Amino acid sequence: MTVIKLTIQYDGTNYIGWQRQPRGQGVSVQQAIEDVLEQLYGEHITLHGAGRTDSGVHAVGQCASFVPTKPLPVSRVAQAMNNLLPPDIRISSAVAEAEDFHARFSASGKHYRYIIEQQPSCNAFSYRYAWQLGEKLDVAAMREAAQYLLGSHDFRHFCAVGSPVKDFVRTIESLQLSEPDFSANDQLWRQMERPLVIDICGNGFLYKMVRFIVGRLVAVGRHEIKPQDMAAFLIGEVPKNISVAPALGLTLVEVRYGGEKIGD
Amino acid sequence: MTVIKLTIQYDGTNYIGWQRQPRGQGVSVQQAIEDVLEQLYGEHITLHGAGRTDSGVHAVGQCASFVPTKPLPVSRVAQAMNNLLPPDIRISSAVAEAEDFHARFSASGKHYRYIIEQQPSCNAFSYRYAWQLGEKLDVAAMREAAQYLLGSHDFRHFCAVGSPVKDFVRTIESLQLSEPDFSANDQLWRQMERPLVIDICGNGFLYKMVRFIVGRLVAVGRHEIKPQDMAAFLIGEVPKNISVAPALGLTLVEVRYGGEKIGD
Repeated sequence: MTVIKLTIQYDGTNYIGWQRQPRGQGVSVQQAIEDVLEQLYGEHITLHGAGRTDSGVHAVGQCASFVPTKPLPVSRVAQAMNNLLPPDIRISSAVAEAEDFHARFSASGKHYRYIIEQQPSCNAFSYRYAWQLGEKLDVAAMREAAQYLLGSHDFRHFCAVGSPVKDFVRTIESLQLSEPDFSANDQLWRQMERPLVIDICGNGFLYKMVRFIVGRLVAVGRHEIKPQDMAAFLIGEVPKNISVAPALGLTLVEVRYGGEKIGD
Repeated sequence: MTVIKLTIQYDGTNYIGWQRQPRGQGVSVQQAIEDVLEQLYGEHITLHGAGRTDSGVHAVGQCASFVPTKPLPVSRVAQAMNNLLPPDIRISSAVAEAEDFHARFSASGKHYRYIIEQQPSCNAFSYRYAWQLGEKLDVAAMREAAQYLLGSHDFRHFCAVGSPVKDFVRTIESLQLSEPDFSANDQLWRQMERPLVIDICGNGFLYKMVRFIVGRLVAVGRHEIKPQDMAAFLIGEVPKNISVAPALGLTLVEVRYGGEKIGD
């Protein structure tokens, strides 16, 4: 029996996150898609997401898998689902995978992207997708701080309370800060002019880990703490209480398969 | 006494258009901004918009003017307003103009842009800003049809019922169709890959005129009517009843001042 792997985009603004919640708390992305799968397959289908994004977090390349209970042609699943889904959730592709495939447990890594608006005059269209800081950060200092996070570390002090995880060791493979210049582009495309973009790739991420990292990097960028304070956070010496970055600036870009598997 | 000219961006999705409506019908952009002006100046301020965009229409360069009733420094007005406005309305600039300036009556022309998504797999982020046609149009035929609209014409058959206007003659200075290729760009920027973009500049536009034009050009692009049928529409010979294009694909890009003035 095959498993179907979906690649999914969503604007997280109007959802309470990926994971299905008890009724009455708002709609999750998982629930919205499972409701459509039920319409297509005639019975409840459980969808397994690779990354359980928080309320407000967006995705360009979320992956999820399910076991189809009817032999609908895989080539038509994406279009059939998109015809039923709300416009802010889109199935980019649906492919058949081997029966041992599982979107979450087969994943070997993820790429997240965080966007910050440094310009004081923010854009009326980007507010849904960027942390509207409206202040210029010391990006060089942030890059210096980022170095302390590369590689394998115990990230328990970058993990929010409430995670059932026991093993906090994760590997950050890359952590890059860039300021792409779109000012030459037609600003009519509602693009921010010079956003600060933080790209982070790792073999797995703890609960709110990327948002902890970004919040603390921003504190470095604001000169509230020093770059080397990032090492202190890792060992639990918290130089200053720093909030996590808001969810709306975060996008799950891609989930990687193949290679060594580590869940979450 | 000076007049203050504001340049304004807004995402029109959550508003019932520019123009203030009787209470209970939803919030207009004009009302949202006037409410903020009242907070700043301590009394009701009437705001005059250059273009009265419909419900759902966006703006990158709307202009509006008002007479300030207190001598607040103009250089601080934009920031003060942005601190109070919702995030989907932004004041790009506030400048002092001569006392005979009026955002609507001093305007000499406008530039509108309409965006169409031709790809079958639509983007989860662009649905608010583009007409999700999801089909490939014959853009060459549409360009041919556009030629019939250039120059000065009586556009009464491109004007929705309900306009108080008596003079329907307007001049379309340019009407261009392009398919910018963003596929080389990082698709992480939530950009459509190959949108069809219609740019139209004219000395003034009648009620829903751009949306009538786009709707009919799309009918040409779908081969429902021929390019030369555009001439028939102008003289009131309507070859086929074609709907106006939806509001969400339309953006007021810029209002032009200086040169010969014609209202609306």
